[in-house]
Amino acid sequence: MARWTAGVDFGGTNLKVGLVSPQGRVIRSEVLASSTVGLPGLFIDAVSASVRRLSRAAGIAPSRLRGLGIGVPGPVDARRGLVHSMVNVPGWRGVPLAGRLSRELRCRCVIENDAKVFTLGEWRFGAGRGAADLIGMTLGTGIGGGLILNGALYRGSIGAAGELGHIVIDPDGPRCGCGARGCLEAYAGTRHILRLGRAAMRRSGALRMRVRRAGGRLTPRLIGQAGRQGDAAAREVWREVGRSLGIGIGNLVNLFNPERVVIGGGVANNWSLFSPAMQRTVREQAMAVSLRAVRIVRGRLGNHAGIVGAAVLVWERHDTA
Amino acid sequence: MARWTAGVDFGGTNLKVGLVSPQGRVIRSEVLASSTVGLPGLFIDAVSASVRRLSRAAGIAPSRLRGLGIGVPGPVDARRGLVHSMVNVPGWRGVPLAGRLSRELRCRCVIENDAKVFTLGEWRFGAGRGAADLIGMTLGTGIGGGLILNGALYRGSIGAAGELGHIVIDPDGPRCGCGARGCLEAYAGTRHILRLGRAAMRRSGALRMRVRRAGGRLTPRLIGQAGRQGDAAAREVWREVGRSLGIGIGNLVNLFNPERVVIGGGVANNWSLFSPAMQRTVREQAMAVSLRAVRIVRGRLGNHAGIVGAAVLVWERHDTA
Repeated sequence: MARWTAGVDFGGTNLKVGLVSPQGRVIRSEVLASSTVGLPGLFIDAVSASVRRLSRAAGIAPSRLRGLGIGVPGPVDARRGLVHSMVNVPGWRGVPLAGRLSRELRCRCVIENDAKVFTLGEWRFGAGRGAADLIGMTLGTGIGGGLILNGALYRGSIGAAGELGHIVIDPDGPRCGCGARGCLEAYAGTRHILRLGRAAMRRSGALRMRVRRAGGRLTPRLIGQAGRQGDAAAREVWREVGRSLGIGIGNLVNLFNPERVVIGGGVANNWSLFSPAMQRTVREQAMAVSLRAVRIVRGRLGNHAGIVGAAVLVWERHDTA
Repeated sequence: MARWTAGVDFGGTNLKVGLVSPQGRVIRSEVLASSTVGLPGLFIDAVSASVRRLSRAAGIAPSRLRGLGIGVPGPVDARRGLVHSMVNVPGWRGVPLAGRLSRELRCRCVIENDAKVFTLGEWRFGAGRGAADLIGMTLGTGIGGGLILNGALYRGSIGAAGELGHIVIDPDGPRCGCGARGCLEAYAGTRHILRLGRAAMRRSGALRMRVRRAGGRLTPRLIGQAGRQGDAAAREVWREVGRSLGIGIGNLVNLFNPERVVIGGGVANNWSLFSPAMQRTVREQAMAVSLRAVRIVRGRLGNHAGIVGAAVLVWERHDTA
């Protein structure tokens, strides 16, 4: 058996494939545009080809890898290696992804929801190192989560645990994509951030100008840039997002009494803008005993969190237990 | 070693002490008024004397018991056997209860928060039997909780996990005793039920009459009796409580993906009145996958849940691991 494990991170923009060392370092990687590989057949061909290229460059056959781990944006049946569905990608209902890739590459293959994969990576090699009880949270279009409890990934009775985006923080709030009202995702997902941003544009000429120069399309990144350069309306957007996150995280601290909460995902790049309001709200809301025990920190693995986490997933499923 | 384990349930009204068989049956028990044994010294004397009486009647010495388990209404350090504090009972800050009783009776003694003890009891012998992932919830002045995850009680990093009463269900809601706003406890604890009940009295002459006949003091029990006899204002109180519980439980279902949620505590005696609105709200709010996996049920051990759970606590801490 070789030292390397292959990890795949299938995000909304990029498909990343990499080989990971036992120390959690990405030794080789490739990035493809997700838009070109959306359908299951194309995805399997692209991942197989990429893993073969990377293995060859490392001087081994894919069948000698310790395994292939994949994080996908949606609910999965990890035990049977099935994708239930993928958020924003059609054609994936009930695809036996792990089995097909395993036969194709003749190496073992495991899959898991991408937020759980993020959490595994940060726990073993990033900002969550050494914590026995940890909550991972990914911020983006959706808000995902992973729970490390008593030193292991907790999946729930049928693998659906950790839906941090769908804790209700205001029962009279706006309708969420899941059907309920006032979910955390409806207050801190990118759709709401853009809604707040559009309102901010009405108050800020500088933000309007910035959006126009960028081609007219408002993005969380632009609101972040404006905030970091001192635009008051943009800064208020992030404070409001921070308060909503703080309410959700305060609940989690009271429920789980974790040592650490690790936050990642693209929107977490605006950490300096939303974190003060988030930390303050958690302090106001969580109970004293649990509050003293916890630190709420930003993920450390950045762009590599998904690849590294997918490798940890392979070890978690095959090298222990 | 004898077959029997002693269990103690220290509630707001009664102190219950019993001997429990390996099959979870209470074979002998005693009930004392909590008001007479509030201080640590009195409590230890009363429990010691009661355990000695019960053991003698069963024909064994206390030192031959499998152990003594105690559920207390407040946060504890289970590992060190320390009571951090007790809700509504002064004089308990930092009392090494387990050690003192263990020396007194020369048998091993373990303590835990009473909602966690309730959960252990229902899980092993009551409505939670056979579930690997289960949430226990106790309804009363406070709302407590216990989490069975992957077939074991989850305590969190310093033993404070499971504060189900302090998940925020409305950030603009009323101030809770814990300092935060809009906690579940502020919507479904007895204090709020009484507030709703007083408003109901203004609408219902029958409820006013009932309270007057009972000596003028409104209780959740009276609101329950009125509701069961068809009083519309009283029934609406319980529907509102059910909706609030449903929001909180919907969050828990999304977070934990449990097989079962078991609800107990004195207020749960009004199950038929609040359960329909609670179940409906959970169905509206929780995500489909997790919803299909879960049943939300009433506890089955009734008055004995605390004694039986305290015995299970002894086995959990000493007979496994």
